[in-house]
Amino acid sequence: MKITAQSVWSDVLAIRHQAPLVHNITNYVAMNTTANALLAIGASPVMAHALEEVSDMVGIAKALVINIGTLSEKWIQSMQKAMLQAQSCNVPIVLDPVGAGATPYRTETAMQLLSVAPVAIIRGNASEIMAIVQKGSKTKGVDSLSGSESAVDVAQELSRGSGSVVCITGETDIIVSHSIIAKVKNGHAMMPRVTGLGCTASALCGAFLGVNTSAFAAAVHAMVVMGIAGELAAVQAKGPGSMQLHFLDMLYALTESDIATRIRLTS
Amino acid sequence: MKITAQSVWSDVLAIRHQAPLVHNITNYVAMNTTANALLAIGASPVMAHALEEVSDMVGIAKALVINIGTLSEKWIQSMQKAMLQAQSCNVPIVLDPVGAGATPYRTETAMQLLSVAPVAIIRGNASEIMAIVQKGSKTKGVDSLSGSESAVDVAQELSRGSGSVVCITGETDIIVSHSIIAKVKNGHAMMPRVTGLGCTASALCGAFLGVNTSAFAAAVHAMVVMGIAGELAAVQAKGPGSMQLHFLDMLYALTESDIATRIRLTS
Amino acid sequence: MKITAQSVWSDVLAIRHQAPLVHNITNYVAMNTTANALLAIGASPVMAHALEEVSDMVGIAKALVINIGTLSEKWIQSMQKAMLQAQSCNVPIVLDPVGAGATPYRTETAMQLLSVAPVAIIRGNASEIMAIVQKGSKTKGVDSLSGSESAVDVAQELSRGSGSVVCITGETDIIVSHSIIAKVKNGHAMMPRVTGLGCTASALCGAFLGVNTSAFAAAVHAMVVMGIAGELAAVQAKGPGSMQLHFLDMLYALTESDIATRIRLTS
Repeated sequence: MKITAQSVWSDVLAIRHQAPLVHNITNYVAMNTTANALLAIGASPVMAHALEEVSDMVGIAKALVINIGTLSEKWIQSMQKAMLQAQSCNVPIVLDPVGAGATPYRTETAMQLLSVAPVAIIRGNASEIMAIVQKGSKTKGVDSLSGSESAVDVAQELSRGSGSVVCITGETDIIVSHSIIAKVKNGHAMMPRVTGLGCTASALCGAFLGVNTSAFAAAVHAMVVMGIAGELAAVQAKGPGSMQLHFLDMLYALTESDIATRIRLTS
Repeated sequence: MKITAQSVWSDVLAIRHQAPLVHNITNYVAMNTTANALLAIGASPVMAHALEEVSDMVGIAKALVINIGTLSEKWIQSMQKAMLQAQSCNVPIVLDPVGAGATPYRTETAMQLLSVAPVAIIRGNASEIMAIVQKGSKTKGVDSLSGSESAVDVAQELSRGSGSVVCITGETDIIVSHSIIAKVKNGHAMMPRVTGLGCTASALCGAFLGVNTSAFAAAVHAMVVMGIAGELAAVQAKGPGSMQLHFLDMLYALTESDIATRIRLTS
Repeated sequence: MKITAQSVWSDVLAIRHQAPLVHNITNYVAMNTTANALLAIGASPVMAHALEEVSDMVGIAKALVINIGTLSEKWIQSMQKAMLQAQSCNVPIVLDPVGAGATPYRTETAMQLLSVAPVAIIRGNASEIMAIVQKGSKTKGVDSLSGSESAVDVAQELSRGSGSVVCITGETDIIVSHSIIAKVKNGHAMMPRVTGLGCTASALCGAFLGVNTSAFAAAVHAMVVMGIAGELAAVQAKGPGSMQLHFLDMLYALTESDIATRIRLTS
């Protein structure tokens, strides 16, 4: 699939028209923010984590977003159950391995969740993705990755191993599907100063997966929209408080022209 | 009780002066938003869900707001315990059956909570209230409600069955107490694009219950205030981010004149 | 240590440069707000509560902030484990006894946590700190404190008993370390109308503890910064919604001159 400003815009319109239900099992910090971002772009967010209902909720959803930001045992059980149900219903899954590498519990949980069911998109920052890759490749030590291997290499290694589209966000977002690569240079330096924008990026991947069968296109489209909304927000923002507000307003007000004039995408 | 702009304003002043303590057992997504809305209108919010303390907290509260938005077993147990204590202390209860109808677990939990103790106000959207009514009337199938029955009929059926005031929010808010009906046409189309404003509506019902013994008046007053604050916010908002901010500012700054000139109430 | 505008600014710069990792085990209401405040001032927030990972997370943190705002048994166990690990790693601890006095469960939990490990800073409002002191002094009844004893007396009593710096926030913030006293008169009356700003004050204590070994200086610096950011925010705010936004912007944009011209500190 060819990714262009037009393909991004086409999916934004599809989200606004279809309002895909995105089922999130996510962290306490970002729940409100991600629900608002999904509403702003035009999707329908639902947050549900009880073991008793996750299967039913996945059954009516267009995408499932799993985020381990404030994980605990009960929640992991629900994530697993939801992922299995998503697999059997062909509901695409996004995994956000928040904090993988920071504690063994997070790294191992991220690894374990990847083994439960196929994941359409794994989105994290470079250190999170690297922690998963290092943990997965038993024969390689930490050092072996710190040298010549770039974020692209790491993303490709994880994509090959998992079969997932891997999206590493940072100053440049890298989206990899096996050997295909896209780089999105949209975004603004103030974005990391707003909590939960990484989680929002993952949630938006869910929204785009809800209207596009290509996980690679969905991830790239989501990153372009994130980045451009962030740039437009930064024009008006005086700090991270107003940044957060304008970001939501911009997700809501985004136009075809905003995307066409601002998209910075390379392969 | 006659409901007028003056009766609304009188309760707003009472809330500002008395700062009624509203005990919320609510969902993770809307906790911050509803706490801020209660503070903005002048009430004192408290969020407490531990089985060990809900009875004590209810004992010092003026209203109890139960919201099943991110429910799980432990929380349901605490909700039940808090409701029983509220009944024995004559603390009025608001129930928000978030997502009833979306999963059987939510519908059944909403039904079950309604059987624990008398609820002063049930507030939900049309599909949530309909799900409860359909589940409650075993002899009626789903189809029987989709025809000529309106939201008013459904609300009346639930009000008769439960003894509660039923408040269905939407473009027009419908508040029903047995055969008495009020319709509030205040509000703005951007409100559903901000997460947790339905939950906020329920929380404000709690604030008004804290100063008014008529559950019907409390529910109508709360809906008028929600709607007018939303209209005033929308004048300045450029999207859902700024909408949320201005909504809180307007709850705080609401004047007698705002209510008198904007109230759109019919019976 | 002499506390001046210069010492405050020096620590603000240190936070911006070092981005100390502040590990929070805090309440659902304030998680997002406090994470955003920590990011705005320049610190690195992490929220993690699973028993399986709190020790590892404390191990890489510069400060641990414990907040009982929405406490429950599982979370208390994690708080205890994290505090023990903090003690063994020399990571300073902040305790925010939210709602102590409101229910016996909260008061007892606050007392119990104080016995787990030495706490560098206890931050609360007057009634919370008083509840702890009254509970701790078995020989004194409630009445004995309501007369001539001031907030300063109560803070001193708790500081002597616990060995902690005690910070009572209110119109004037009182910071006590045994017999040393500082009073910060910065702040604005609209601050209590924004939920979670007390929790934010505690979280900022954690950020300053991350760059300053004096708990007394850290607490005073944090209160000065809170108060001045609040004053600057209030200049632009039209209500609690915009107050919250401008507060974050001001934490981010705070200058040396803002502190030098506005600091209102007495001993």
